[in-house]
Amino acid sequence: MKIDVHFTPIGLVPGDVSGRAVIVIDALRATSTVIAALANGAKAVIPAATSDEAIRVASNLEKDGVLLAGERKSIKIEGFDLGNSPREMTPEAVGGKTIVLATTNGTPALVAAQGGEPVLVGAAVNFSALLERVRGLLEERGDLVIVCSGRERQFALEDAYTAGRLVKALKGRKKVDLNDGGLAALALVGAYPDWDAAFQSTTAARQLVEANLAEDVGYCAKPDRFGVVPQYAERRIT
Amino acid sequence: MKIDVHFTPIGLVPGDVSGRAVIVIDALRATSTVIAALANGAKAVIPAATSDEAIRVASNLEKDGVLLAGERKSIKIEGFDLGNSPREMTPEAVGGKTIVLATTNGTPALVAAQGGEPVLVGAAVNFSALLERVRGLLEERGDLVIVCSGRERQFALEDAYTAGRLVKALKGRKKVDLNDGGLAALALVGAYPDWDAAFQSTTAARQLVEANLAEDVGYCAKPDRFGVVPQYAERRIT
Repeated sequence: MKIDVHFTPIGLVPGDVSGRAVIVIDALRATSTVIAALANGAKAVIPAATSDEAIRVASNLEKDGVLLAGERKSIKIEGFDLGNSPREMTPEAVGGKTIVLATTNGTPALVAAQGGEPVLVGAAVNFSALLERVRGLLEERGDLVIVCSGRERQFALEDAYTAGRLVKALKGRKKVDLNDGGLAALALVGAYPDWDAAFQSTTAARQLVEANLAEDVGYCAKPDRFGVVPQYAERRIT
Repeated sequence: MKIDVHFTPIGLVPGDVSGRAVIVIDALRATSTVIAALANGAKAVIPAATSDEAIRVASNLEKDGVLLAGERKSIKIEGFDLGNSPREMTPEAVGGKTIVLATTNGTPALVAAQGGEPVLVGAAVNFSALLERVRGLLEERGDLVIVCSGRERQFALEDAYTAGRLVKALKGRKKVDLNDGGLAALALVGAYPDWDAAFQSTTAARQLVEANLAEDVGYCAKPDRFGVVPQYAERRIT
């Protein structure tokens, strides 16, 4: 049994994910936001790398059913319907809608994970549901890849901690072959008392506090808010 | 006081290192090899990204005083004088010579660190000497960057563990501002009983064992073999 953890998508080559079960994590905040949106009734989320790409993608869709969402430096993009906060993804706001989401770090990770079968979207907020789903996959395949989005092409602690919690829960007492990223992620779990302590200590959290979005950190650090495990295929998350 | 740890050089931008004190680590094995060579009397080590580049660089130097060294997939490059093992860098072999060293992971890290002032070469094998040198720099500047070479553009545990040992020793009881990489490196220190346990658990170690170079792992995991702190400037390490 084998689990590989990658801390950023940059060094990935297609061979690292091709045909393997893949989890993508951007816990602060893109994958938490995607999970909240789909759990609250959105039809689909389409990730875009930039705000321009988001506008272009949205212009090819039926206007009524589409919302533009996204952030730059944590702040909602001007003219967009929503930011990148999971707290905005209420049933009233997103029910029945397709959301085009522009995110700095989450989108490159999803793109790098293309070729995975399946590509699942994970965060603390759907932790137990994800774990359940992945446990079955791992039993079946004997193999799993976790791709952390990281932050500005660098290591992000909240993603690595989330990966570590997954590795720890999946591993149990079994002997699992971990790559160096998997070993380090596991070490992180022992270094923080809980999700909140880990998430609050990160650079991403500091940036959210500065942007007056401190509540998002606590929100994203609370596990099991939602029971959905979104899947990314053909450039859509459903 | 601020210490940033980067787990690979890939996501680095010049602004991350420019004018800052930088340490480059490729503990298995390139920086260990460089330290051994210079401690044992080599005049300089010139890092090259590929074997072709190494040959080209060497051809511009006086033939007598030059040795070609390097590896691909841990094995000595055919036709080269030496591999990339610190155990080969004996006073008899390297005394008075300039070594052109082709390494997969170490060279990109050194290149990414260009602009640092100074750029120092670190590993377990010169740990205490490095610590002493850097402690002074950190007091003076209040700021330090550690660049891990990683492995095939991915996280490498031995480099991160070495970074973590440095962070822990430099920090002591002081309040130091650490980036997410620094926090994770520090967590790794607590997860392994000693240098050897950490190094032996890595993917790089497994590959060295397969290449019949198991002794290199133990060699590189033994701290303080040497008292030199090499410096990289103008494409040479001296």
